[in-house]
This record gives sequence, C-alpha cells and structure tokens, in this order.
Amino acid sequence: MTVRRILIVSGTHGNEINPIWAVKKFNKKENTSKHGIDYEYIIGNPYAYEKGCRYKDADLNRSFKRTYNNDQQKSSIYEINRANFLVDQFGINGSKPCQIALDLHTTTSNMGTSIVMYGRRLKDFCLAALLQNKFGLPIYLHEKDKTQTGFLVEAWPCGLVIEIGAVAQNFYDPNIINRFLIIISSLREEIDKLKNNLIDLPNSIIVHVHQGSIDYPRDEKGDIDGLIHPERINQDWQMIKKGDPLFLDSKGIIHKYDGAQIIWPVFIGEVAYKEKKIAMSFTKKEVICCKNLWVQEFETL
Amino acid sequence: MTVRRILIVSGTHGNEINPIWAVKKFNKKENTSKHGIDYEYIIGNPYAYEKGCRYKDADLNRSFKRTYNNDQQKSSIYEINRANFLVDQFGINGSKPCQIALDLHTTTSNMGTSIVMYGRRLKDFCLAALLQNKFGLPIYLHEKDKTQTGFLVEAWPCGLVIEIGAVAQNFYDPNIINRFLIIISSLREEIDKLKNNLIDLPNSIIVHVHQGSIDYPRDEKGDIDGLIHPERINQDWQMIKKGDPLFLDSKGIIHKYDGAQIIWPVFIGEVAYKEKKIAMSFTKKEVICCKNLWVQEFETL
Repeated sequence: MTVRRILIVSGTHGNEINPIWAVKKFNKKENTSKHGIDYEYIIGNPYAYEKGCRYKDADLNRSFKRTYNNDQQKSSIYEINRANFLVDQFGINGSKPCQIALDLHTTTSNMGTSIVMYGRRLKDFCLAALLQNKFGLPIYLHEKDKTQTGFLVEAWPCGLVIEIGAVAQNFYDPNIINRFLIIISSLREEIDKLKNNLIDLPNSIIVHVHQGSIDYPRDEKGDIDGLIHPERINQDWQMIKKGDPLFLDSKGIIHKYDGAQIIWPVFIGEVAYKEKKIAMSFTKKEVICCKNLWVQEFETL
Repeated sequence: MTVRRILIVSGTHGNEINPIWAVKKFNKKENTSKHGIDYEYIIGNPYAYEKGCRYKDADLNRSFKRTYNNDQQKSSIYEINRANFLVDQFGINGSKPCQIALDLHTTTSNMGTSIVMYGRRLKDFCLAALLQNKFGLPIYLHEKDKTQTGFLVEAWPCGLVIEIGAVAQNFYDPNIINRFLIIISSLREEIDKLKNNLIDLPNSIIVHVHQGSIDYPRDEKGDIDGLIHPERINQDWQMIKKGDPLFLDSKGIIHKYDGAQIIWPVFIGEVAYKEKKIAMSFTKKEVICCKNLWVQEFETL
C-alpha cells in the first residue's frame, strides 16, 4: 500500500459541531504523522461553522461535481468554490495529495454510529468491512439516486462517511464526541494494519442498500401536514412491513407503509432533509461476501 | 373573574416547531370558545417559522419593550414591528384584548416540562401554583437580569411560558407534542375552575429563582474552548455544590463550580443561548407560601 496522506474532514455541514471538537481534541493528543502516514485535518465549511448553519449557498456535501477547468472563473456559490479548493489542495492530484478521505457527520436521526458508502467501490468496502467487523456498525450503501450526487468522499479514490446520531444541530454532546474519537482511532489502527498487511477481512458484511426516499404528507399549500408516527420515530434500522405506520397527520389519520417488500428505514425525521423533501429513506438488506481483491486494491493506491 | 380572551402563542422562536403542531392539533379538536372564554391561537414569528430559524433580525422574545407612540414610524427590525403588532392586536388595550398570554417554547436542554415566570406577579404565581400542584412541574422564576428583558408575556397583565425539552430545533417529536397538548388542556381546565371559583391553591410552591448565567470557557480568539462536562450535561434542575465539574476544555482541564452557595443549573447547553454567551443559568430554590390574594387578583382582570 502506498497511502501517504489521509484527509479527515469535519464540519462539512457547519452545524454538525461534535466531530469538529473531536478532531480538535484528537489533533492535540495524537501526532499528525503515524507509521509513515500523514493526517490532514480540515473544517469542510468554515463559513457555515462560524455562522452555525448547515451551509451558505448550497449543501457542500452535494457540491463535488467539478465540470470546469481551473482556468475558468469562480462560481458565485461559496460551496462550489470550497469544494474545488478542497480538491485542488487535498485531492489525489492536489498540492498535498490525500489518497483516502474520511468525512465526519452527525444526524438528528437515531442512527447510532454508522458508516455511509457511496457506490460499490472496492476499497471503500474494505474499510467499511474492517469497521463493521470490529464494532458491528451498520453500513448504509447509497447508490442509484440521481437526485442526490456530488458527495465529498466521491471526489477521492477511497472514502467513507461516519454518521453519528441522534444529536441536535449545534449541540455539543460528550458521548457523541467520544464515539467519534473511538472511530477515528480505530480507523487509523486499521489503516496502519492494512499498510503492514496485518488485516483479516470477515467472510461477509451486511449492507443496507438505498432504495429511495419518501416525503412527509403535505397539505394543499405544500406545508408538512404529518409527523413521523410515534411508533416509527427514532426507530432507524428497524425493519418494517406492509401496513406498518409511517406518519400521523393533523386530522389523526395514520399513513401506512404500502410496499410489498420488507424494508429498513434510515434518516427518520432528519431535520436537514426537510428542505430536500425527505422524511426518511428506505433500504434493503444485502449480504456481500468479502474478497481479497478489496485489500489488493490498496496496493496501487 | 372577568377574563374573556386568552392568547396562546407558539412559534415565538421559529425553529421551536413542536408547540406549533400541538396548537394546530388542539385547534382542530377543541372549540376556540369554552365556558365563556375565547382562545386566540397565533404563531409568534411566522417569518422565522417559514425559514426554520429562531428569528429574522432580533429575538422576538426580547423585543417587547415598547417605548414609542403608535404614530411613530415602523422599526427596521422585523421582530420589533411584530411585537408591536401582537400587542396592538391582542394586548390588554388591543383590538381583540386578551387578559392572559401563554407562550409555548422548546429547549435543547433536558428541562423536562417546566414553567417560566418573569418577575413576581401575583396572577402568574396563581397559574404556576395550579400547574405545579397538578403535575409537580418545576418553576423557573426569571428576575433581576438587566441583560435580558422584553419578554412576550411581560406585555400582558398575566402570562406564563411553558418550556419543554430536550428536543432538537426543527425536529418534530410526538412525545413533546403530547406534553404540550396535556399542558394546554390542563391550563384551560384550571382557568375554567378559576372563573367558577372552584380552585384550591396548595399551601406552598417551590420556585427556582434565577441568580445569573455563565459563559463557556473561551480561547484567546473568543471561540468556545470547553464543553459542558459529561457529568453536567442533561442534568438540569440537579443541585451542584462547590467543586462539582461544569466544563471540560480542549486541553482536558476540568472547570469546576467555585461558588459557596448550593445552586441548581438550568438551560444547560441550550443551543440558542450560545450567541447570548450563556452556557447555563444558575438558580436558587425558594419556598413561597400561597396566598388567597393570588386568586383575588383575577377578580379585577
């Protein structure tokens, strides 16, 4: 493995502040260089962090869709420029090239500590498998959603999102911070083992594959007219079947899940997704056999 | 008692959305007029609610400090105009005069269901005593804080704030909504009993009297450099004494409570108070004997 430098991003969303504090603490305790690997720590969206909001003009974690040359003019959107800056600086061909990116997020949903992957990249599978093997963490595999693209880690050849909740936006929670510290430490250990050919993959991993998202019930004006049902709120990763309640509207009517397939909802009631018209996302469980190829892929990284 | 009309305000802070939903539900179920009392339901800050933020230009719940005549020009601050509109419309001398105002709030702190009073007004004591007697709710008596004035309920001759948490900003929680529904119903019942001379005051009530607030530890740049200590977070209303931990800073140093008095902290880590440089507020417990005068005061309202 030729990985030399790893990028750890916190504050990609400015109001997700616990990972920023975790990284600050980690950075003071640990050397930035370890076993021949350098670590770069950066706040993804410093403007939004300063203001205590998710973003300025657009969601930074949907802004990594570079389509123009470096010579072209700057965008009027702060986050597009910031995404380009991060890639210019820390991208695989950047001035301080990083081969792996880790992007640390929190959610107001009761997701626990979870891993998010974008697409079926073999190196991502390898890192996710090592973390699931160690902690039993759930993996959310986001793919085939054309309405949501341009995620940060996709701009690097290997990268994962760590998503921890439930925690309110802008609220410091020592337990959430501790969980980030454990995950960052463990990922560093696993990457060191990878570098020294000391890892053992499990036989298989379980992933929750994204199937789609649904919106809240809305009234004729387009305003939200239904809450997550009391039986569904905070029940992320819990299986549901046809007839199970999803929403309770202001008239007291229960809106039920009507699909034939058994599904597992995630990001239930995530506050930041209201503007994206997402009340929750549905996933399907899939068992994937681990392959040595996943490890071998790192040899050329 | 001559109370004819009661004002129930939700969404005084636009990102505290659970009381808005509770009122919407309540309004559909219950008649707005009951036992000869009309109820007016209004969203305090509709602009901020629409945008999902606390306020536009200034905190509406600090903007009730009318100092000018009606003839004067409008303010450049949205919330000042909104405060004046609410008083012109629903104030005791307004076009639809309300004698009592109830202002419904949520907090990210773990306050449970609690009552906030501003100053020692006898009618407020009466309503607070009835609620504490029924549910055992804690009462936070805010007084003698010159840095914080202009609260909504102060602009009416009688009024309480109901404050429920912990819940994230902009996050709908059915349990929190249910708690508001119970409180609104109970207050209506108690006010009906008051009107019909059917109430019994308890012998005494316990109030937590505001003593002051403290800020987070900050670094040389003025940025927050310490979290609420893990032993203190979510421990609102729990007594502390000299030497008990308050904050844990990024160097791992514990900042301890150094006062001689035993105190009870509230609004611990409230997200919206960071901009006010408040990490938590301190209160002192006080037992107050109930007086028949509290009830008699309503005879002239």
